[in-house]
Amino acid sequence: MIKIGIYGYGNLGRGVEAAIKLSKDFELVAVFTRRNPLDLKIATKTAKVISADDVLKYKDEIDVMILCGGSATDLPTQTPYLAQYFNCIDSFDTHANAYEHFKAVDAAALNAKKLSIVSVGWDPGMFSLNRAIMQSILPSGNDYTFWGKGVSQGHSDAIRRIDGVIDARQYTIPIDEALKSVRNGENPNLTTRQKHRRECYVVVKEGADKARIEKEIKEMPNYFSDYDTTVNFISQEELNKNHSGIPHGGFVIRSGKTSDGVNHVIEYNLKLDSNPEFTGSILLAYARAAYKMKSRNESGARTVFDVSAADLSNLSYEDLLKHTL
Amino acid sequence: MIKIGIYGYGNLGRGVEAAIKLSKDFELVAVFTRRNPLDLKIATKTAKVISADDVLKYKDEIDVMILCGGSATDLPTQTPYLAQYFNCIDSFDTHANAYEHFKAVDAAALNAKKLSIVSVGWDPGMFSLNRAIMQSILPSGNDYTFWGKGVSQGHSDAIRRIDGVIDARQYTIPIDEALKSVRNGENPNLTTRQKHRRECYVVVKEGADKARIEKEIKEMPNYFSDYDTTVNFISQEELNKNHSGIPHGGFVIRSGKTSDGVNHVIEYNLKLDSNPEFTGSILLAYARAAYKMKSRNESGARTVFDVSAADLSNLSYEDLLKHTL
Repeated sequence: MIKIGIYGYGNLGRGVEAAIKLSKDFELVAVFTRRNPLDLKIATKTAKVISADDVLKYKDEIDVMILCGGSATDLPTQTPYLAQYFNCIDSFDTHANAYEHFKAVDAAALNAKKLSIVSVGWDPGMFSLNRAIMQSILPSGNDYTFWGKGVSQGHSDAIRRIDGVIDARQYTIPIDEALKSVRNGENPNLTTRQKHRRECYVVVKEGADKARIEKEIKEMPNYFSDYDTTVNFISQEELNKNHSGIPHGGFVIRSGKTSDGVNHVIEYNLKLDSNPEFTGSILLAYARAAYKMKSRNESGARTVFDVSAADLSNLSYEDLLKHTL
Repeated sequence: MIKIGIYGYGNLGRGVEAAIKLSKDFELVAVFTRRNPLDLKIATKTAKVISADDVLKYKDEIDVMILCGGSATDLPTQTPYLAQYFNCIDSFDTHANAYEHFKAVDAAALNAKKLSIVSVGWDPGMFSLNRAIMQSILPSGNDYTFWGKGVSQGHSDAIRRIDGVIDARQYTIPIDEALKSVRNGENPNLTTRQKHRRECYVVVKEGADKARIEKEIKEMPNYFSDYDTTVNFISQEELNKNHSGIPHGGFVIRSGKTSDGVNHVIEYNLKLDSNPEFTGSILLAYARAAYKMKSRNESGARTVFDVSAADLSNLSYEDLLKHTL
């Protein structure tokens, strides 16, 4: 049994917890929270709820810690810190800062002889893995990534951290014309803005400065500034009623030639009823890989680019060759 | 520069050769052939054409040998033999015997401290990799693989090896009803026969026993016996005119739940103008990985389940994190 800790119990933490129930080789030991542990009810009766302040007391009881905080402010400090004491998995998803984050975690984990895998999820994560493989197979071509329509946890989270905001939901929506052109193999040149738009539903505190909040959202670097973004201020009731689901999806397509007039299209796509449950399921599979890699005395930071399918799988190598190959 | 040898110069060998032209880090050193080398014209002017009998003379001049023979009779003996002298890549695609083939190559390569990657291509290969990862992420679900409509090189090759056959083309065709049911998330139970049918176009020698040939095709284990197969005897002229293309494609879909009523669908699909050119491109990317893995002193046999995206890629790790993650 691989002993798992969940650090942060929001949607993603609950997604990891749901995934643990579906696999026989994991045991949830504890959920760590910055809230008062007495106030937190979790779904797993056999697991403890522990204050984040006491996390180091569990460093010998947990094989892999799955960090479920946000990329905007939590993970940049939490992962490098916890990587000194635990094998960690995180879903750091700010593409522009991913390399710096990797380097910070790598230094901490190498020094501690622990192994952490960062930026795990579906994008970055599965989509990145597919992009890298597609590019390796078809070097002469173009790839395109589209997201949605779906709720982005990272972007919703980023809005919620703005002063005056109570709650928010952000939908990423692919732009139809762009999608059609790519699937037709037209290899269009598309700007970020031509591919997707962003739609935000925001609940603010009474008397909050809506104009300032809307401006902060629309100008937020990496998250919103490169997109056409619409901001709708609504009540908490309306948000709960009409925007409580967290579906998502998207696809990666690469179109490339191997000789004159000989074209190939590779596509990977996802249709997800729940983004955090699917992401949690990915994090858990990578926790299995981290456990195996650490058992071989590997240390430092890794990403999806380093992890083999054999390490993700709970099947024996013989079974993989006999039944999955 | 990674120095490549191509062993066998049929459609697949030419596909590998085409792929080498598109990447800057490979050099084709030689093509090895069982034919008279003087009779063989290859597309790469800087590469030699050498008799297969002389292959061992090149064991210090080639970093990775890409075997381009057929799975029915060539690769089961060629790969274990050449794996004693070269780092090898093959596309062994008889699923039922893949484990035994792997073991034979592993023993040879371990003993020689060389590294070989077997059963590379798109199925087995990319499809296997996707199946393994999908199963790891969504353990509670089902996956389905469909092929076609397209020409299977392995199956066409198997027909051509039958006594009395001059040429052949085999199309694998997914059965529409099955495809629809899977994409609707109905999780149907489908037999091999319910998913695909096989359509064969065969040119035979004058006076050949067509009834015996048709029977041999339809009863061939692993290749045809589990499918509804139709065999059409046609002239070489008709084959050349109507069946000279070698397109293929297919998809792998996994549908699975993470909690009550919460479903996810992962799909990977391919649309290929030329099966051998695409397969050749995959073999070449795995040749790069084999070269890198051998440089780290790894030895033995590997499959797509063992190979990381970082090893497949010609990008630096920093570039992968900055541009592909």
